[in-house]
Amino acid sequence: MADNTKDTKEDIKAPKPASNLQIKTPKGTRDWHGPDMLLREQLFQTVSDVFKRHGGTPLDTPVFELREILAGKYGEDSKLIYDLQDQGGELCSLRYDLTVPFARWLAMTSTQQVKRYHIAKVYRRDQPAIARGRMREFHQCDFDIAGVYDPMIPDAEILRIIVEVFDALKLGITIKLNHRKILDGLFAVAGVPAEKIRTISSAVDKLDKMPWADVKKEMVEEKGLPEEVADKIGVYVQNAGNITDIINYIKADAHLPANDDIKAGIHDMELLAAYLEALEVTDKVSFDLSLARGLDYYTGLIFEVINKPEPVAEGDKKKKSKKDDPASQVGSIAAGGRYDNLVGMYGKKQIPCVGISFGIDRIYTILKARGENDIKKREVDVFVMAFGGGKDFDGLLIERMKIARQLWNAGIRAEYMPKAKPKLQAQFKAAEGTPLGVILGEDELKAGQVRLKKLDQGQGQKDEGNLVPIDSLAEEVKKLLL
Amino acid sequence: MADNTKDTKEDIKAPKPASNLQIKTPKGTRDWHGPDMLLREQLFQTVSDVFKRHGGTPLDTPVFELREILAGKYGEDSKLIYDLQDQGGELCSLRYDLTVPFARWLAMTSTQQVKRYHIAKVYRRDQPAIARGRMREFHQCDFDIAGVYDPMIPDAEILRIIVEVFDALKLGITIKLNHRKILDGLFAVAGVPAEKIRTISSAVDKLDKMPWADVKKEMVEEKGLPEEVADKIGVYVQNAGNITDIINYIKADAHLPANDDIKAGIHDMELLAAYLEALEVTDKVSFDLSLARGLDYYTGLIFEVINKPEPVAEGDKKKKSKKDDPASQVGSIAAGGRYDNLVGMYGKKQIPCVGISFGIDRIYTILKARGENDIKKREVDVFVMAFGGGKDFDGLLIERMKIARQLWNAGIRAEYMPKAKPKLQAQFKAAEGTPLGVILGEDELKAGQVRLKKLDQGQGQKDEGNLVPIDSLAEEVKKLLL
Repeated sequence: MADNTKDTKEDIKAPKPASNLQIKTPKGTRDWHGPDMLLREQLFQTVSDVFKRHGGTPLDTPVFELREILAGKYGEDSKLIYDLQDQGGELCSLRYDLTVPFARWLAMTSTQQVKRYHIAKVYRRDQPAIARGRMREFHQCDFDIAGVYDPMIPDAEILRIIVEVFDALKLGITIKLNHRKILDGLFAVAGVPAEKIRTISSAVDKLDKMPWADVKKEMVEEKGLPEEVADKIGVYVQNAGNITDIINYIKADAHLPANDDIKAGIHDMELLAAYLEALEVTDKVSFDLSLARGLDYYTGLIFEVINKPEPVAEGDKKKKSKKDDPASQVGSIAAGGRYDNLVGMYGKKQIPCVGISFGIDRIYTILKARGENDIKKREVDVFVMAFGGGKDFDGLLIERMKIARQLWNAGIRAEYMPKAKPKLQAQFKAAEGTPLGVILGEDELKAGQVRLKKLDQGQGQKDEGNLVPIDSLAEEVKKLLL
Repeated sequence: MADNTKDTKEDIKAPKPASNLQIKTPKGTRDWHGPDMLLREQLFQTVSDVFKRHGGTPLDTPVFELREILAGKYGEDSKLIYDLQDQGGELCSLRYDLTVPFARWLAMTSTQQVKRYHIAKVYRRDQPAIARGRMREFHQCDFDIAGVYDPMIPDAEILRIIVEVFDALKLGITIKLNHRKILDGLFAVAGVPAEKIRTISSAVDKLDKMPWADVKKEMVEEKGLPEEVADKIGVYVQNAGNITDIINYIKADAHLPANDDIKAGIHDMELLAAYLEALEVTDKVSFDLSLARGLDYYTGLIFEVINKPEPVAEGDKKKKSKKDDPASQVGSIAAGGRYDNLVGMYGKKQIPCVGISFGIDRIYTILKARGENDIKKREVDVFVMAFGGGKDFDGLLIERMKIARQLWNAGIRAEYMPKAKPKLQAQFKAAEGTPLGVILGEDELKAGQVRLKKLDQGQGQKDEGNLVPIDSLAEEVKKLLL
């Protein structure tokens, strides 16, 4: 570190004039500053406060991993991985998500149980779509519970965490739930051949974007499924509602209850229903048999969170099916599920996990659209100004510094104008957005006093503020900031 | 983002058994978790609180930059830059420091004045020295003030910020100061030919690691400086002390005061002395004429912070020169200076800057060595337990969930054991380090009560705690947590 510190600025060579140099960030990346950055910090803080409330502990991993750690984990999407150039030594790639680094970390430590969260950037060489918020460098925000526990207890807590996060952000949501075993069982009972389960499942997953007729067409015409099998699937997967109703629907079916996968899934869902009731999550969830997410990865409960629109007013009500609901088409703002086999890929340890990934950049976009970063954030509490203007006025710089020092000592955020003899107008302009002003005048200073003035009440410069003894200034400022 | 969210876990292919796969982080990188991570978060929080107190605003930039933005900025050290592989499109490299991204950002925005801070990882393909804390992925922590202001006002505030940061961390420091113009003037007056100023300056910079005799030898024998010139330099650069004394020393010299660079530098240092007095920084600084740091980069004040050791007890005092002081050999824990020409490299705008870079990983190492992460950090406030053990004991899982939900609603960090029927012993073990326990019993629950118990007072399980009505539990817990 000695040299790291020393090198920071000094090893940058003397400036040369730039020619033809494009001054920009790389494609699909951006800088964060000002209100955007403050909103982002606030969002991360809100989310991690919830995570900590549940005993979550942060994990941070390197931005790149050994290339072989990432190899074979992302299928076709592997082409989107950013590789580091081979400059000798190990071959590395930028992380593509936070799940593989988590699994790698679990595999190389002695950890058996952990609630870990990780908010960090990941990298994908995708075609950027800036307007839709799709970037090449973007954030993920994951909370996972790893360890062997009694069934569905951690799963229920993950759903509770989802509710707490969106409550804290004041965003209405619906959590769509399904269970991998139930879906497997459904397909088997309907008569889907084992080798077609994957492709049929991915067709079903499109039900939130296209009507059933189109999905059926894809199954029958493109994927060669017999029409009567497709029809059976269609009957099953178009059911969604509260957990108990869907459990009862499945149990009442002539064929489904006999399937072993379905039996196991129903047992899980019954436990979950009881736990969600205790955790006051029940009214946020919808057991949706069309939710299919990542079948080859998940092993149990799967879920996806959509931003719930305001209820349609009675008069506006139109006849439309659930699948036409525009909210479904916005896409998910969080998603996750149980994956019990991933950690085992890296070694002997098999650690079951359940986790949620928040689409934090998309949530950021929703909050920003709601105007949350229009609010001028207070960056400092107090602006220290000098009043005067006569020929002999010396700007009171040293005195402004001393007052600011007092305020800093008291932990108060304070600034003064970095000019020796600033004009009063310029100081008021620089103070815009700051709630309090401390105004120094030579006569007042001689009497050991300054003027303390609220700046954010539109009274302009006419209100002279209150005279306050310098010794009790910090105290008075704190009272006004409460 | 739709797909980013969806892809998170589901595009990971089904597990395959790993063979010969090395499960580790890349060379020179590490994971952060547990007490290390908590200490790091605490350190970052302390530092950014100080930055915010001075009106600092955070900037975040992409982890990689266009390769040509970094080109020509780091001289020989360019070989340490991590390049991304050419996978089509732009050529990019991982950032090497936070200063170049800051200058690039200033050049591409309309910003004229800003106090920005940036705490983030940077990347150097250096030989790692883990024991010394030198990593390939490590943190930098920069605060810079950019903009045209009256002389030395921002410089003084930067020094004040240094003092506040290390006060907050309870680390004793000395800030060594020098001024580039004074150093230039010194060399000129001593008779160093213009073309040798750079190499002689870097020899002088070694004075904190080797005695004057060796530095002189290097100047004369290796660098061909006439011995009498070296001797003159030696007389000058071995002076260090409070600002006013060194100013007086220079002014009293027969030759120095006539040099224009020195005149300008002395004027700056006189202003600085007055400002540092007002900001109560004076007793932390040492005007050290041997400090040479990055001459081709800095244009004015330069500084370096060393961790000041405890004063040597009277009896132990040995005759030794300032340069033998072991504290000097630890290396700097923060460093910076004024650089007025860097932003101009990227365009028409010339924005003067002064900044400080904290060696945050090294500071972390000092805090850790001081044992600050031995303190078991409270990860949750309350552990919710079930008491019972008879044959019919059902573990009260639903009831534990309901109590935890109440506590979460009140913003309290709470956990319960994720077992349906946990043993009491196991629950107490899982609760270790948690200050409070809430113990549920069937009889108490019937009466609408639970037991609330302090867990961290070594009374074990014998103290039964106090009976508290469930309705006022959150309130009672908050009282005990104060």
